[in-house]
Order: sequence, then C-alpha cells, then structure tokens
Amino acid sequence: MKKGEKKEERELKHAVAQDYETGEVLMLAHMDEEALRLTIETGKAHYWSRSRGKLWRKGEISGNEQIIKDILIDCDEDAVLLKVKQIGGACHTGYRSCFYRRINGEIVSEKVFDPEEKYGKKDDK
Amino acid sequence: MKKGEKKEERELKHAVAQDYETGEVLMLAHMDEEALRLTIETGKAHYWSRSRGKLWRKGEISGNEQIIKDILIDCDEDAVLLKVKQIGGACHTGYRSCFYRRINGEIVSEKVFDPEEKYGKKDDK
Repeated sequence: MKKGEKKEERELKHAVAQDYETGEVLMLAHMDEEALRLTIETGKAHYWSRSRGKLWRKGEISGNEQIIKDILIDCDEDAVLLKVKQIGGACHTGYRSCFYRRINGEIVSEKVFDPEEKYGKKDDK
Repeated sequence: MKKGEKKEERELKHAVAQDYETGEVLMLAHMDEEALRLTIETGKAHYWSRSRGKLWRKGEISGNEQIIKDILIDCDEDAVLLKVKQIGGACHTGYRSCFYRRINGEIVSEKVFDPEEKYGKKDDK
C-alpha cells in the first residue's frame, strides 16, 4: 500500500491508550497490523493515521512517547486497550489527555506542555 | 435513514465507556447524533450498532445499563468518553469489560453474569 492511501476501516483496529497507573483515558487512535506488530515488538505505541494515511510512532516528533505496560483486546477483536506510561502529554493541543473537555465545552484539565514548542506551528501529532 | 442501512463512518463518533469509580475501560462502541442526544437527555448510554444498522440502548435486553456520570469529548471531536455506573457487566460474553483478555489470549478477568441467562442463546448485546 502506498503512503497516503486510504485503508479500509475493516483493516484497522481501534486503539484506546490509558495511563497504566491512574487509569486516565489518554486518546483514541487506530492501528493496522504493522502498527500493532511494531507496538508489541518495540514496546512503544505505534498507530495508523487515517487522516495522513501513514504509520506513525507516538512521540516521534514531540518526544511524548507511550511506553507499553500491557495490551488487552476486546471480545470481537476490533479494539485494543493499551496500558501505557505516557511521557509528557498525549494530546497535540498540550493537554495530558485528548479528553480534556466536557461535552458542553468546559475544560477539566490543565496543559502540561506548549504545543508550539514541541511541534513548531505545524498542526502535527 | 432506514433501519439496517449503513452509516458513513464520518457520521459516527467513537464512544469509550469507562467505570466512573474504578477507571476500568468497559467497551468501545459508536454513536450517531441521535444516540448522543438520547444519552445526554436520558442519562443512559445509547449507541449506534454498525453491524445491525440501528440505534440501541445499552442494557435494553440484558438490563446491564450504563448510567451516565460524565461525558468528555476529545480534541478533534470524533470521540467521546462516557464515565458510567455499569450495572452488571458491559460485555455480551458475561465479563465486566469487553477487554477481558491480553493480546496473547490470556484471560485477566472473571465472568460476572451468564450470557445465556440474560440473552437466551442469541448472540445479542
């Protein structure tokens, strides 16, 4: 498959990353087979970016890696739960978790890093 | 939209349900706009079933409802995190969480109900 090409949804698993100590849910992303294999082999979270059409390693730009502590799989085997040690913050906006707001918009978290310092002004995870 | 018709993926949000007290991740499902609206209005989790092509209320058959305690939304607004009080178990197999196994198959949880008793022999959530 060429870089940038869309993968079929059925080729991907959902991946939920959760802080292995606090239980905080950090983010939701997707994995293809290679991302899952690399995650298991290297002990660091790899994902498939649906928007960019490519494999990425969490923290490859920001340094905010996810060190794998455990990997669970769900009943119908289309989702995995990664228990991770999160370096820095998981969210490209600077928050520890991507779930930093209530559905009504109220912010329930604090920024842990400055995204411009980590990524420059480019909107990139 | 007719019952059973496939929705486009972009019309759906991912929904992660998490025990509001223990932090245990219980399941991953999807919501269309109506499921999210009903979840907010009724205080009970509703989802869109991609396989059955219909809206469903968690626990409508089993009684294993999810009482909403909080709803968070992620940075790019395509995923919600439901903090819930889970009645009984979340998984149609009888486990508390759908994530009851390690990726290598090892069971890390115990059954909390008998699925045949709840659903009959039909494989239905």
